[in-house]
Amino acid sequence: MNDAVDLAAALSTFAEPWSPRTVAVLNDYDVRVVKTKGEFTRHSHPETDEFFLVLRGSLTIRMDAGDVTLGPGQLYVVPRGVPHQPVSVEGADVVLIEPSTTVNTGDTPSELTAERRLA
Amino acid sequence: MNDAVDLAAALSTFAEPWSPRTVAVLNDYDVRVVKTKGEFTRHSHPETDEFFLVLRGSLTIRMDAGDVTLGPGQLYVVPRGVPHQPVSVEGADVVLIEPSTTVNTGDTPSELTAERRLA
Repeated sequence: MNDAVDLAAALSTFAEPWSPRTVAVLNDYDVRVVKTKGEFTRHSHPETDEFFLVLRGSLTIRMDAGDVTLGPGQLYVVPRGVPHQPVSVEGADVVLIEPSTTVNTGDTPSELTAERRLA
Repeated sequence: MNDAVDLAAALSTFAEPWSPRTVAVLNDYDVRVVKTKGEFTRHSHPETDEFFLVLRGSLTIRMDAGDVTLGPGQLYVVPRGVPHQPVSVEGADVVLIEPSTTVNTGDTPSELTAERRLA
């Protein structure tokens, strides 16, 4: 059984950008927190949508159809199969929700590919 | 394709408590916002976990194993099949995530049962 999660407390336990931590599980989905800073690997997830909610800072999701920029309290769902590049100049704290099997760099492994990691 | 969603703006469009609005879709899950105030119907969802994230105010989830009280930036996943009664004395703004087919009162229809409603 999950415990209650304080998102700020979970985010205070690490500093590395692009290193998501799973803080809760919803059926076969992970609820993850991640710190973003700089440019992430452009990639897509052919099998799933991906949920982004910004808690602090600013995150831009670059896509061919146009960029989406999110601030605190703003969310966006990247549709499955859509190439996207998260970019965060000032840095951001973000909640991700996606199937537990989802890898952060999707179809484009890179030096930023991260293993699933529990908080 | 979903648009970016500002949670505060979505919550400002209605006042009724216990009337969730779907603001985004993640695969076959709904992202919903709801205002809570007072006592909700005790119920369970035999088929799914249910995600609660409090944005403002305070929400207590009463369960037989103990209560969980959430404030801003705190989340909890109620496991499938676990009877729970959301209670919010002062009121709260909450994000719910659950399969799109999930009914708010689960296995216990009441006068608070709500149809799925897009924001």
